[in-house]
Amino acid sequence: MKKLENLFDEIQSLDSDTIEVAKNHIANLTMPHWALGDLLDIGVKLSGIQRSFPPKIEKKSVYIFACDHGISDENVSLFPKEVTAQMVGNFVSGGAAISVLSRHANAQTVIVDMGVDADFSELVKDKIILDRKISKSTRNFYLENAMSKDQAYNSLQVGFDLVKESYDKTSLYATGEMGIGNTTTSAALTAALLNKDVAAVTGRGTGIDSMAREHKIQIIKDSLIKREITNELSPMEVFERIGSFEIGAMAGMCLACAYFGRPVIIDGFVSSTAALLASCINPKVTDYMFLAHKSVEPGHQFINEKLGLTPMLDLNMRLGEGSGTPLAMNLLEASCKILTEMATFDAASVSRND
Amino acid sequence: MKKLENLFDEIQSLDSDTIEVAKNHIANLTMPHWALGDLLDIGVKLSGIQRSFPPKIEKKSVYIFACDHGISDENVSLFPKEVTAQMVGNFVSGGAAISVLSRHANAQTVIVDMGVDADFSELVKDKIILDRKISKSTRNFYLENAMSKDQAYNSLQVGFDLVKESYDKTSLYATGEMGIGNTTTSAALTAALLNKDVAAVTGRGTGIDSMAREHKIQIIKDSLIKREITNELSPMEVFERIGSFEIGAMAGMCLACAYFGRPVIIDGFVSSTAALLASCINPKVTDYMFLAHKSVEPGHQFINEKLGLTPMLDLNMRLGEGSGTPLAMNLLEASCKILTEMATFDAASVSRND
Repeated sequence: MKKLENLFDEIQSLDSDTIEVAKNHIANLTMPHWALGDLLDIGVKLSGIQRSFPPKIEKKSVYIFACDHGISDENVSLFPKEVTAQMVGNFVSGGAAISVLSRHANAQTVIVDMGVDADFSELVKDKIILDRKISKSTRNFYLENAMSKDQAYNSLQVGFDLVKESYDKTSLYATGEMGIGNTTTSAALTAALLNKDVAAVTGRGTGIDSMAREHKIQIIKDSLIKREITNELSPMEVFERIGSFEIGAMAGMCLACAYFGRPVIIDGFVSSTAALLASCINPKVTDYMFLAHKSVEPGHQFINEKLGLTPMLDLNMRLGEGSGTPLAMNLLEASCKILTEMATFDAASVSRND
Repeated sequence: MKKLENLFDEIQSLDSDTIEVAKNHIANLTMPHWALGDLLDIGVKLSGIQRSFPPKIEKKSVYIFACDHGISDENVSLFPKEVTAQMVGNFVSGGAAISVLSRHANAQTVIVDMGVDADFSELVKDKIILDRKISKSTRNFYLENAMSKDQAYNSLQVGFDLVKESYDKTSLYATGEMGIGNTTTSAALTAALLNKDVAAVTGRGTGIDSMAREHKIQIIKDSLIKREITNELSPMEVFERIGSFEIGAMAGMCLACAYFGRPVIIDGFVSSTAALLASCINPKVTDYMFLAHKSVEPGHQFINEKLGLTPMLDLNMRLGEGSGTPLAMNLLEASCKILTEMATFDAASVSRND
C-alpha cells in the first residue's frame, strides 16, 4: 500500500502560468472588472488544473459508489438497509434523482458496487454495474472496526484506479454515493477528523426526528469511545475503524483526480467527508476540487471550512447520490464558454474605463 | 393608460389544485421527504404558474432592454455613456456575457432599444433589434424629471406588449438590461420605493472607488430632494421622476408575465428594481417571479426581502445584462425533469420509511 501513498506525494500544484494567462484574458473581456464573480474564479481554477487555456469540458462522469453500512443495524436511519440495493436498481433503470439530473447535464453515470449486500452478477456481466465489492457490508463500528486495514486501503485504491483507467477520456469527475447509514458514518468521521463535537456534525440524514437524532448522536459518541478514536491516530487509522468503502473510493477518486490533473466536483455531506479524508492525506487535493452545493446536513459546513472551499449552490438539498453535481457542472461549462466565446473590448470596439 | 392598470388587477393567483397535484407527486418520488429542497419548490411554483402538471419549459427568451440615462451626465459611472450603444453592438454580434450564457442555456436573446442615443436603423430594418425607442435618453433627474408621465407609462406598455405578442410561443421569460448609469437610477428608485437610506442601497456599479461612490450617493440624495420624492407619491409618480425606460419595460414584462401566466426570471439589481416597481403596482406578480441570483449590489437584498423571494444563485455577480438568468434557467429545467422523469417508490420497488 506504500505505493499508493507515494503517488499521492507527487500531486502537482496548479499551473501558475496558465492561471496568469486566464486572468489576463478575463481582464480584456467586455465587462466591468471581475463582474461575473465566482463564474470567473471557476474558469481560472479550471485553467490551472488543465494547464491549458481556455479550459474545456468534454466527457463528464458521475461515479455512484454504493455500500452497505454495518452501523445501520443500530437503527440510525429512517429507511431499511435493503434500500441501498433497491436504489442501485433505481440508478440502473434511470429513475433516481442522480439519473435524471445526470441526463440533464449530459453526464454519464458509472455505478460501482463497493459493498452492497445483494447479488448484482447479471448486471455486472452486462457491464451495467462495476463490481468492486470489497465485502457485503462494512462491519458495525459500534461493535467492532468497520474495516480491516487492507479493506480500508483497497477502497481508496478502487477510486484511484477508476480514474487511472479513464482520465485520458474524461474531463470532469463527480463523486456520488448510496448507502443507508452513511450520514452516520460521515458524522463519525467528521467529528473524529476535525475534532468536533458529535452533536454539532450530526444531522437528520434521511429525515429522522429529534429523538432519533439524539439516538444517532449517542451511538456515534459511544462508538468513538469504543473504537478508541483519539487525535494520535492517523487519518487512515481513523478511517479503518469507523469509515466505509464508498467513502474510501471517493477519497481515492479525489486523490487520483489531483494526481492525474482532472477537476472533481464534490456533492454533499458524505462526498465531502471523503474529500476531507483525501485532504488529510494530501492537502493539495483541494486545488482540484469544486464543491457542488451546501448540504442541509450540519457537519457539511465544518468540512467546507476545513477544505477552504465555498459550495457553488445553496439549494437546501440533502439527498446525496451525487445529485448536486450535475447542477454544478452547468456552472463549470458556462465558465468555460465565457472564457472561450466572450468578446474582448478591442474586438467588440467597446470603450474601456480609462 | 387606465386600460393597462385595469388589466393588472386581473392577475390570477397560482392554481392551488395543480400545486397540490405536484406536492403529492413529489411525496411519492424515490427520495427522502423534500430532499431536493429548493429544486422541488421551484417545480411546485412552476406547476402553479402553468396550471398544469408536470410543468414544461420549451422556448426561453431573455429580453435585453437598452436605454441611456440622463443621470450619467453627473459622472456616476466608471464607463462613458457611449458604452450603452457599443454594448448593444456586442449583444448583436453575440460576444457579450449574456449572449454567451444565453447560447449555453439554449435561450434566445431579444434586443430592445428603449432609448439609446444611437442610430440602429439598419439593425432594426433587419429585425435584429426591436425599435421601441421612447426617446434618445431619459432626462437627467438631478436637473429635471427623468420622464414625462406618458413616457413612464409607455415604457411599461412596451414590456407588457412584448409578452402579449409572444406568450403563446414562449414558456419562460427573463429580464435583462443595459444602460450606463442604471445602477444610479436603480438605487434612487430603491431608496424611494422602499423608504431606505440612500447609502444603504447604493453600490459600486461598474466598479467605482469609494470616493466616487460617495459622490454617487450625494447625487442621488440631492436628486430625491430636488424631485420632491415623498411617501405621498404613487409608485408611478416616483418612477416618472427618477426612473428609466428599460426599468419600465421590465416592470411591464413582469406584470404581463403574471397576467398571461408565464414564469419570469429576474436578474440582478436593476432587473429587481423593475420587479419591485411591478410589485408596487400589483403584489401578486411575485408569484410568477424567480430571482436568478444575489447581486453584489447592496440594494438588491432589500428588494429581495420586500419581494419575499430568495435568489437561486449566489455567485458574487454584478454584471447585469440578464447574465444571471440563463444559469437559473438550468435549475428550472432540472426541476421540470425531476417532476417528469423520476421514479416513484412503487414503480422502482424501493421500500418506504413506514
